[in-house]
Amino acid sequence: MRKLVSSMESQIRRVAEKEGVQTEHVSRLLESGYIVIPCNNRRETDPVGIGRTMKTKINVNVGTSRDYIDPEEEFEKALIALKYGSDTIMDLSTGGNLDEVVRKLIEGTDAPIGTVPIYQAGLEAEKAVVNMTSDDMFNSVRRHAEHGVDFVTIHAGVNQNTLERLQKSERIMDIVSRGGAFTIAWMVHNGEDNPFYREYEYLLEIAKEYNLTLSLGDGMRPGCIDDASDRPKYMEFIVLGELVREARKHGIQAMVEGPGHVPLDEIGTSIKAMKHLTDNAPVYLLGPIVTDIGLGHDHITGAIGAAVAGMHGADFLCMVTPAEHLALPTIDDIRQGTIITRIAAHIVDTVKPDVKERARGIDREMAIARSELNWEKQFRLAVDGEQARKIKELRNTSTDACSMCGDLCAIRIVREALGKKK
Amino acid sequence: MRKLVSSMESQIRRVAEKEGVQTEHVSRLLESGYIVIPCNNRRETDPVGIGRTMKTKINVNVGTSRDYIDPEEEFEKALIALKYGSDTIMDLSTGGNLDEVVRKLIEGTDAPIGTVPIYQAGLEAEKAVVNMTSDDMFNSVRRHAEHGVDFVTIHAGVNQNTLERLQKSERIMDIVSRGGAFTIAWMVHNGEDNPFYREYEYLLEIAKEYNLTLSLGDGMRPGCIDDASDRPKYMEFIVLGELVREARKHGIQAMVEGPGHVPLDEIGTSIKAMKHLTDNAPVYLLGPIVTDIGLGHDHITGAIGAAVAGMHGADFLCMVTPAEHLALPTIDDIRQGTIITRIAAHIVDTVKPDVKERARGIDREMAIARSELNWEKQFRLAVDGEQARKIKELRNTSTDACSMCGDLCAIRIVREALGKKK
Repeated sequence: MRKLVSSMESQIRRVAEKEGVQTEHVSRLLESGYIVIPCNNRRETDPVGIGRTMKTKINVNVGTSRDYIDPEEEFEKALIALKYGSDTIMDLSTGGNLDEVVRKLIEGTDAPIGTVPIYQAGLEAEKAVVNMTSDDMFNSVRRHAEHGVDFVTIHAGVNQNTLERLQKSERIMDIVSRGGAFTIAWMVHNGEDNPFYREYEYLLEIAKEYNLTLSLGDGMRPGCIDDASDRPKYMEFIVLGELVREARKHGIQAMVEGPGHVPLDEIGTSIKAMKHLTDNAPVYLLGPIVTDIGLGHDHITGAIGAAVAGMHGADFLCMVTPAEHLALPTIDDIRQGTIITRIAAHIVDTVKPDVKERARGIDREMAIARSELNWEKQFRLAVDGEQARKIKELRNTSTDACSMCGDLCAIRIVREALGKKK
Repeated sequence: MRKLVSSMESQIRRVAEKEGVQTEHVSRLLESGYIVIPCNNRRETDPVGIGRTMKTKINVNVGTSRDYIDPEEEFEKALIALKYGSDTIMDLSTGGNLDEVVRKLIEGTDAPIGTVPIYQAGLEAEKAVVNMTSDDMFNSVRRHAEHGVDFVTIHAGVNQNTLERLQKSERIMDIVSRGGAFTIAWMVHNGEDNPFYREYEYLLEIAKEYNLTLSLGDGMRPGCIDDASDRPKYMEFIVLGELVREARKHGIQAMVEGPGHVPLDEIGTSIKAMKHLTDNAPVYLLGPIVTDIGLGHDHITGAIGAAVAGMHGADFLCMVTPAEHLALPTIDDIRQGTIITRIAAHIVDTVKPDVKERARGIDREMAIARSELNWEKQFRLAVDGEQARKIKELRNTSTDACSMCGDLCAIRIVREALGKKK
């Protein structure tokens, strides 16, 4: 990894500056593989550091679906996400011209961009996903790297070994990862192991050429809380750990993706096991969602899981929208999901070792603004000041306090009783 | 407490039935004081058990404010809250005729009802809160008990000892509890200790007469994450623990209220300390809110805190609305807050010892409905099926899957690949 570090000097400097830490600290972590800085060497971005001692990062997914193909709208979603503080964008398009959204994102933003190349390989195969060739799969990765994509999800942990564990399990939901499903369908249909696993060295060669960061996908992601923490999932963690080790040997940055749906009291163990089994690779999570009956509110069940996961060491949180499990999200769904995930990431940072001292200043400022009943300052400091202002102004009051208490404001009463100045 | 148990046979039976446990189990817990069943002996309610091994309960606050006085609207809020699964309602009215909302609630619902009598004492005092007499304070408790109120918040833990700890602390927010503020202002102005602490035995006499449950209030509630877990707060826990012990000696049911604003990684310690210091009294929480910059979204920062608090032993969760810190909530704020808190309580129950086996069935049913792409069943099982249906139908698809994946639905692909039947 030493060579990698020396090729990424400007990114390391920028990350250190954004995090408020020493450059040497970032270099050391990058060299150990404990952090990644996704940045294709053919593209300039505003780089972000993901992993140990870095502030918690969030990703927002956009992309067309089979039924809704509007690249403009998907691009707008990305802009909204970036406005509300997303650190990266992933394009998961599966409808229309599959290169269109990702090209727009690469040209129109300076955020690190990720994709799942197997979608393109599967969708462009003749007649059915299972007819893609292994060449199609690797070529899709190269094609995305050529576009300038900074990180790619690769479901290389789905292999004969994990599939066997799946078949011996009694899962309710089997597979809910789309890439995982493509891979398993391909393996069963073609009677062969997953090319991304079997020819992983070839994948590493492509990654090396572009300094492409691998996000080792969570094909065995549990789809309901009952399926969490089971043998297929842990088997995949083990395989991903071995793949991280290989990647590091070749000077390739790698992070690992995690569950999914996990009961609240199993999240800590899950994240810690991931860290153990992958030699502290950065952990990228979707959710986890912590109950199955929150349908329509899964941005919140996901934020609850994400906050707890972050507290136990998850580094990179993928936004969940209210439309999760139900529909392709609208622009407003993305806005809501991004805000909540941004708040969850901040909650993590207020308790994350080495980060919390840097992160808590804004909470303290907010508390002071609140104790001074300084509303403009509160709106400025809030993650979503617009929303706060809207609620406050809907029900105004004649006092300087809010309409909940008015002249009975506890802060004011005690300030006066104890003879403190405003 | 034995006499109490024998006087509450019908309530115990009903609680056992609703919880799906043995009557003897409920009796034993009630006798030990580890659960409470708030029920004024002058009123028939649909009783709920709060505490150890009971399903997690939620409360919704309603009530007029100084600037918004519409008892009809407050009653409507209560009905919405009960529709979405609130177990109890508290009336915190501070504007208009203070008896009106609580009377409506007692007559118009069968939910256990709570109040904070000191509001009435303070507001009806001549000119200023601090002019209320100690008689006014006790009389307000009796008056509410006469109305039929089932539980009352009493800030008896605010005494000279806790006040001294507060004055020696360096809190940013001092006091944010309205009842706590009234009490401190009164103590400072009158140069006397808190009557509810000083004449606690008299309070217990009133409570005994009506079988009124005491909710020992959290006057030292921290108002920002920096103030959490400090000495004034722990001092109050200690005083509350002693008051719980006295209450039990007199056959009075008592629970304790907790913080407030707490960083995510301090919640577990806080709840466990409360349980230790109060001999396992049921713990009633507002939030806790886990960051100060979520303004406008504090129903969510509160739900994150509540879920984690519940996992560590909190028994009774008070809803927080999006309007928290900003305004008197609207009916829709109450709807949103209730749904989220209901979901948080269920998340707790899926991991709560002795409860999780009973609670998880519905998640399993949902997972099966999802694996079958049975949408109607999913909408029926969701906490908020209306919202789920609205999102799904906004972006329909020609397939039986949802518009996120359409014919690329992972569940369908794997079902077909592994040759499983629908």
